[in-house]
Amino acid sequence: MTDASKQAANKMWGGRFAAGPDAIMEAINASIDFDRRLARQDIEGSRAHAAMLAAQGIISDSDAQAIREGLLTVLSEIESGSFEFSTALEDIHMNVEARLKQLIGEPAGRLHTARSRNDQVATDFRLWVRDQCDAAVSGLEELQRALLAQAEAGAEWVMPGFTHLQTAQPVTWGHHMMAYVEMLGRDAGRFRDARARMNECPLGAAALAGTSFPIDRHATAAALGFDRPMANSLDAVSDRDFALEFLAAASLCAMHLSRLAEELVIWSSAQFRFVIMSDRFSTGSSIMPQKKNPDAAELIRAKIGRIMGANVGLMTVMKGLPLAYCKDTQEDKEPVFDAADTLMLSLAAMTGMVSDMTANREALAAAAGSGFSTATDLADWLVRELGLPFREAHHVTGALVALAEQRGCDLPELSLEDMQATHADITEGVFEVLGVENSVASRTSFGGTAPAQVRERIAEWKTRL
Amino acid sequence: MTDASKQAANKMWGGRFAAGPDAIMEAINASIDFDRRLARQDIEGSRAHAAMLAAQGIISDSDAQAIREGLLTVLSEIESGSFEFSTALEDIHMNVEARLKQLIGEPAGRLHTARSRNDQVATDFRLWVRDQCDAAVSGLEELQRALLAQAEAGAEWVMPGFTHLQTAQPVTWGHHMMAYVEMLGRDAGRFRDARARMNECPLGAAALAGTSFPIDRHATAAALGFDRPMANSLDAVSDRDFALEFLAAASLCAMHLSRLAEELVIWSSAQFRFVIMSDRFSTGSSIMPQKKNPDAAELIRAKIGRIMGANVGLMTVMKGLPLAYCKDTQEDKEPVFDAADTLMLSLAAMTGMVSDMTANREALAAAAGSGFSTATDLADWLVRELGLPFREAHHVTGALVALAEQRGCDLPELSLEDMQATHADITEGVFEVLGVENSVASRTSFGGTAPAQVRERIAEWKTRL
Amino acid sequence: MTDASKQAANKMWGGRFAAGPDAIMEAINASIDFDRRLARQDIEGSRAHAAMLAAQGIISDSDAQAIREGLLTVLSEIESGSFEFSTALEDIHMNVEARLKQLIGEPAGRLHTARSRNDQVATDFRLWVRDQCDAAVSGLEELQRALLAQAEAGAEWVMPGFTHLQTAQPVTWGHHMMAYVEMLGRDAGRFRDARARMNECPLGAAALAGTSFPIDRHATAAALGFDRPMANSLDAVSDRDFALEFLAAASLCAMHLSRLAEELVIWSSAQFRFVIMSDRFSTGSSIMPQKKNPDAAELIRAKIGRIMGANVGLMTVMKGLPLAYCKDTQEDKEPVFDAADTLMLSLAAMTGMVSDMTANREALAAAAGSGFSTATDLADWLVRELGLPFREAHHVTGALVALAEQRGCDLPELSLEDMQATHADITEGVFEVLGVENSVASRTSFGGTAPAQVRERIAEWKTRL
Amino acid sequence: MTDASKQAANKMWGGRFAAGPDAIMEAINASIDFDRRLARQDIEGSRAHAAMLAAQGIISDSDAQAIREGLLTVLSEIESGSFEFSTALEDIHMNVEARLKQLIGEPAGRLHTARSRNDQVATDFRLWVRDQCDAAVSGLEELQRALLAQAEAGAEWVMPGFTHLQTAQPVTWGHHMMAYVEMLGRDAGRFRDARARMNECPLGAAALAGTSFPIDRHATAAALGFDRPMANSLDAVSDRDFALEFLAAASLCAMHLSRLAEELVIWSSAQFRFVIMSDRFSTGSSIMPQKKNPDAAELIRAKIGRIMGANVGLMTVMKGLPLAYCKDTQEDKEPVFDAADTLMLSLAAMTGMVSDMTANREALAAAAGSGFSTATDLADWLVRELGLPFREAHHVTGALVALAEQRGCDLPELSLEDMQATHADITEGVFEVLGVENSVASRTSFGGTAPAQVRERIAEWKTRL
Repeated sequence: MTDASKQAANKMWGGRFAAGPDAIMEAINASIDFDRRLARQDIEGSRAHAAMLAAQGIISDSDAQAIREGLLTVLSEIESGSFEFSTALEDIHMNVEARLKQLIGEPAGRLHTARSRNDQVATDFRLWVRDQCDAAVSGLEELQRALLAQAEAGAEWVMPGFTHLQTAQPVTWGHHMMAYVEMLGRDAGRFRDARARMNECPLGAAALAGTSFPIDRHATAAALGFDRPMANSLDAVSDRDFALEFLAAASLCAMHLSRLAEELVIWSSAQFRFVIMSDRFSTGSSIMPQKKNPDAAELIRAKIGRIMGANVGLMTVMKGLPLAYCKDTQEDKEPVFDAADTLMLSLAAMTGMVSDMTANREALAAAAGSGFSTATDLADWLVRELGLPFREAHHVTGALVALAEQRGCDLPELSLEDMQATHADITEGVFEVLGVENSVASRTSFGGTAPAQVRERIAEWKTRL
Repeated sequence: MTDASKQAANKMWGGRFAAGPDAIMEAINASIDFDRRLARQDIEGSRAHAAMLAAQGIISDSDAQAIREGLLTVLSEIESGSFEFSTALEDIHMNVEARLKQLIGEPAGRLHTARSRNDQVATDFRLWVRDQCDAAVSGLEELQRALLAQAEAGAEWVMPGFTHLQTAQPVTWGHHMMAYVEMLGRDAGRFRDARARMNECPLGAAALAGTSFPIDRHATAAALGFDRPMANSLDAVSDRDFALEFLAAASLCAMHLSRLAEELVIWSSAQFRFVIMSDRFSTGSSIMPQKKNPDAAELIRAKIGRIMGANVGLMTVMKGLPLAYCKDTQEDKEPVFDAADTLMLSLAAMTGMVSDMTANREALAAAAGSGFSTATDLADWLVRELGLPFREAHHVTGALVALAEQRGCDLPELSLEDMQATHADITEGVFEVLGVENSVASRTSFGGTAPAQVRERIAEWKTRL
Repeated sequence: MTDASKQAANKMWGGRFAAGPDAIMEAINASIDFDRRLARQDIEGSRAHAAMLAAQGIISDSDAQAIREGLLTVLSEIESGSFEFSTALEDIHMNVEARLKQLIGEPAGRLHTARSRNDQVATDFRLWVRDQCDAAVSGLEELQRALLAQAEAGAEWVMPGFTHLQTAQPVTWGHHMMAYVEMLGRDAGRFRDARARMNECPLGAAALAGTSFPIDRHATAAALGFDRPMANSLDAVSDRDFALEFLAAASLCAMHLSRLAEELVIWSSAQFRFVIMSDRFSTGSSIMPQKKNPDAAELIRAKIGRIMGANVGLMTVMKGLPLAYCKDTQEDKEPVFDAADTLMLSLAAMTGMVSDMTANREALAAAAGSGFSTATDLADWLVRELGLPFREAHHVTGALVALAEQRGCDLPELSLEDMQATHADITEGVFEVLGVENSVASRTSFGGTAPAQVRERIAEWKTRL
Repeated sequence: MTDASKQAANKMWGGRFAAGPDAIMEAINASIDFDRRLARQDIEGSRAHAAMLAAQGIISDSDAQAIREGLLTVLSEIESGSFEFSTALEDIHMNVEARLKQLIGEPAGRLHTARSRNDQVATDFRLWVRDQCDAAVSGLEELQRALLAQAEAGAEWVMPGFTHLQTAQPVTWGHHMMAYVEMLGRDAGRFRDARARMNECPLGAAALAGTSFPIDRHATAAALGFDRPMANSLDAVSDRDFALEFLAAASLCAMHLSRLAEELVIWSSAQFRFVIMSDRFSTGSSIMPQKKNPDAAELIRAKIGRIMGANVGLMTVMKGLPLAYCKDTQEDKEPVFDAADTLMLSLAAMTGMVSDMTANREALAAAAGSGFSTATDLADWLVRELGLPFREAHHVTGALVALAEQRGCDLPELSLEDMQATHADITEGVFEVLGVENSVASRTSFGGTAPAQVRERIAEWKTRL
């Protein structure tokens, strides 16, 4: 570094932290900038807690009433944007409680009986993540419906099936779309399982050891829609599995989206022209009007980065943390907020793109038939009809493909004489399997690409969604 | 680099790859060095496939019989170590088939009818990972049993409950052990869910499009213990969700183990002396016989690294892969093999350590009572018995703790007069909550640290395990 | 999901994306919410570009003058907060240019001659990251100075040196502090190397192919403080190595901070009491005034999570991207912004904590002498003075430690007779090495813990910082 | 799990760990299975140490002589494969020392004077990683040379330059190849910087505190090719920065390779046909002889997974480790070994692929000219020759492209009248920039795609390599 840039760097550095140690501590310690997103959950939790305290005779009914109504006022202030958040009050819990005290006075001081911020934040955040599981399932189902619509329209449209991005065998557009419906179905299953597992209530674990107040944890759990209270108070305040399991499911889902996005980018290229993306999800060039950049697909392809990054980040935070509550866990929220927002946005954008896109049926069909894509159909015919062992059938097929390549024609254009010169037992019947449409129609094994099979799978999914 | 080191580097480089392009391709392409671990699964799958082919009339019964018996011979050769693996044959599938051909001749060539290496490897690997889910559950249950034994022995032993590694409130040894039983219970749930989701059979998807042979995919699925065949052939050959979900569950589990391991390392320090690890899981020093290095705990603490690394690695591989089969997915096996081995070893080592370790009951009790750890009990008493609002009770408690600190004594050693000088309404009854044992016994909320609660949780888990 | 929660989830989902496809595309595509942080760099780059265009005769001097002055006006508007950013204008480049057009009219349209947003954003972001390298070095040096001050104060203070968190040999406080000075010195080196490597200018690469305008890339590079223009235009617009190398260096640095933070947390425990953290970087308990929660240390320990997460995230984004510009790279900024902010805040907080903390000299000394920590000194004495082979010396030492343990005393308290009963040749001189102070003073090998060595290292670092 | 599968799982589990706790501890603790790769480094380090001990008078010259010769014998036994490694002896250090004792007897016991396994393993592994930095540089240079050869052959061959995988502007094959030469040049720089930074010797740090023996650390450092001894003994035994910095550099390099690999996969598709991969680095199909699966490219594309996974893994291991030596760091070797092997193999395979591949010049040229790829040339001409502002020039160009699209022709096929109808001032000269060759030749800005520029860059790199 030159002296000048050193000076500049010092100034930048100094400027950033000129306010001294107290400002630095506030900057690193306060969470209100992000945990304000938990306001609704925080207030729901507190309302349930207050009702339970009164029902158990720990606070008076009138105090509980005042608290519960006051909290609704706070919520409406927050939702209307009139609430003034204070960094000095550090977090959402203290901000809400301080405002409650202004509104209802002394009874506000009784709300925090038999609980602690440790179980409070664990409850708030769990409620938030639980909502995101539901939102993810909804988003996934929207996208599955969009894919089903594409599949239904093109259950018979032939296209190349690729291995190694090389044409291997013809498949149908509908079959390809349905592959993603299956993947997303597993994703939804993971979010559902995660939701079921996380649906236990930490509230009442207090700081870490439980409490001597005669609280009813089953009541608060039920009031908040949980299946049961968590069974160990130390675990309740230190557990962040629910966030990590959400991130793991989100990462896998984002990976699936990245695969579809990659295909859309490749398919949009001038060389493939398999799909035409809508203008709404593309950007153009001011001078090349025919150019459609698949920006949305590229961005979705990239989003797995930040979601998996959040997963790695939070796992790293949790590594080696002793029980019970450590401040390290405050680092749980921002990555999960960002990952959830990113996932929902990606699902919405992909749903829009898939709904809007147009398959280029001609280009798909043309590509499906090139590259001797029915060679395996020929080999299978030799096995099935002539009883050749598999490996020998491959040998004969290779010879015929080589012949066709030499003639500059495709397999169906070879004459029966050509065929019989290679293997005498071949009959006219072979031509039935050499057409792309025939090839596709013949793959009737369960889950195969035959349109009849594809339509059955579509029908099944429709009943499920 | 100096010229000499450059030369050395070139030589090393050259030496490594002197054999030329063909050797490089073989080195990067062949998988037999690691996929031989799938031999048993490969043979099971082939046997089920052959039986189905015969049942469907695709091959003759006698061919199927020869194939199925020949495969058993191959398996016994592999398991006895007499099988000679060939790198030139690339992978386990070709190695097995080639040997089968030597053993039974022509019928071996009919085994590969109506399938492809793409669905074959997907089936083999899925069977292997499914087994690992079961093994993980077994290993988790073993460890839970070891923790339960510790919990049962020490359900009443008091120890400090920590927040921020600072003494917060007393808890019991049993309660602390049970926190891990809960975590591991969730881990087992994740492996069970993953197993259920992955329990669909890819076999019959063939290369990617299904097949025109009249196969019965439900039959092979059932024969291999799968719930059903996978519903889309493109998805069947390209899906690696099952491996990723296993890795995600394994990462979370390893994170839990890292937390317990960290605690054992800290607790083994001369400053804590909370536990004495057995000699079997420690290493000593040739000159400091009293020194017991908790090597096994440290290694377990570290193992999350390679398991989460495997998770990141495979997710990176799958990012942006177009359908259907790409060679990239060959990179799925080594990280999963290593992660599974690592997890099972970590569980076994932790089970051994936990079974062998001895809690230092005196040290735990002494630490539990220091640091005014019953201050919250005092505050709760003021709320409960005197009706003070929570925040005011905290104020009074703070004053009494400050007084005790000034006197150099602990809270229970303050006189009633001292107490009443701070708040006149305090009565003799307060002393009942100030002892550590009383504190712990009072936390009877569901999931709290009271021994009665801990014993109930232990009893419940015993019925489950 | 119940129907009710499904409905709620759908509503939430719907609510979030009710605005339809166009709003979704804007949400995923626009970058102005985050890339506004590049405003200063964007304007610097444009000013340099305009000056060069005029110098090369591509635009008129008066146009360049108007552009350059107009841009300063825009910058002052942005810095004063009066600038109105527009999401419809997508990014910082279009926002600035649109405002420039309002301010100076037609000449604004000439600014974008011979460049593209592709090289423009690459230049802006590189300038920003370059600044962060400088800021990181400054922050590291501040922290090194704080550690040096601690080291200088306690160059002689003895404390236990740990292996496996078990007392191994005594070291000094100063020596321990200096270990981190070394680590941070390597960190600074990595940021300096990264800065030097990234100091090449992408500007002039245009969209991807360079330009036919007679631009002078060396001039713009020099004007912006770059060493030279990047040598390949495709690489210039697609490269994000500079961001990744910054993240890699930041991750390593955050790892070092996590190690120091972990030590501070452990050292602050009631069991260790090695340090007293200042109130400014701790939080207290309203009822346990003696409790000091090392919140800042815990948060710093956790910060490696988000920084390494950012590293993983961006690497995942870049994996497998074809050349040249892909929209995926728009995902580069947010993780780097967050990681840089996090790193600078962590360095500042750690500097504050280290400056404010007080070593508990008595506790350190007491711990240093316990656990037979000078056993290796005894063994080394036997080798050095009596010529015993290393392994035999260890055997004798083990016997003496066992004897001391049995007697309930420490090594220096054994009598010479005791010693000689174990090995006859031991002389009075042995006691010189058995005291902790002597032990420490004797380790005079280069880089050893002897106070004289520590002071030499401190002196060297002082000249460097 | 069914009872049967539970039983099977238990058996598997039990079988794996049937040998009991001691076997488990040996399995988790012993490192000889992998650290035997450090044999050469271990022996080099020991030989240097012995020579220094003698030079300093700490051991006799004859002992040193015996040790040094004995170690050479051990090395030759290891290299010839006749050495018998013992797991009971845990690691490479003990295996070597035990064999040395068999060979030379008592003097072997003096070798370990003034050192510890802590500084020994740190030295061994550093030497190994240092070698890998050199090997990586050599491998990178080989690949750069292969790319240079491609670039030189095709410095003038036109091809489409892509943004968003959409044709944007024509570039040359040579220019595209040179983009990777630049990337790899930065990679080599990173390995060189890492090597320089790690080139400090830990030997002599002993267990953690240095030693009281009068050792000469500068001598051993020099003998082993290090620039200097490490300056702090605690840092010396606990630092693993060198491994992490290697992994970070390797990850970035693997990312570059994944980008090139992705391009090769796409370019090999039937739709692109930009390159023909050689048979040696492809695999074929037994029935589709024209099919060439780019297996090697796909595997290289995937390899970033395990390398970045290793990076994440080791970073996770190091997170929050207290000083000085912790057993956790034993987890450093396997990921680094695997990452280094993977990187070298990837570089070698990519070098082979690049050397062997053939650009399809006709397909590249045909694609280069399609898609109105010279539209920006037209716009630039309007700015440069007619003085139109940039934004207006874009407007005119868009109109002309739309016209050409409507006519079904390309830009150069429009008549001058057509042009002038859109903008009256356009002259015959415009046609000079509309050809693809002209376009490319005109981009003469530094680092641009003009063949003259490309040749200059090639010439510069040739002098460097």
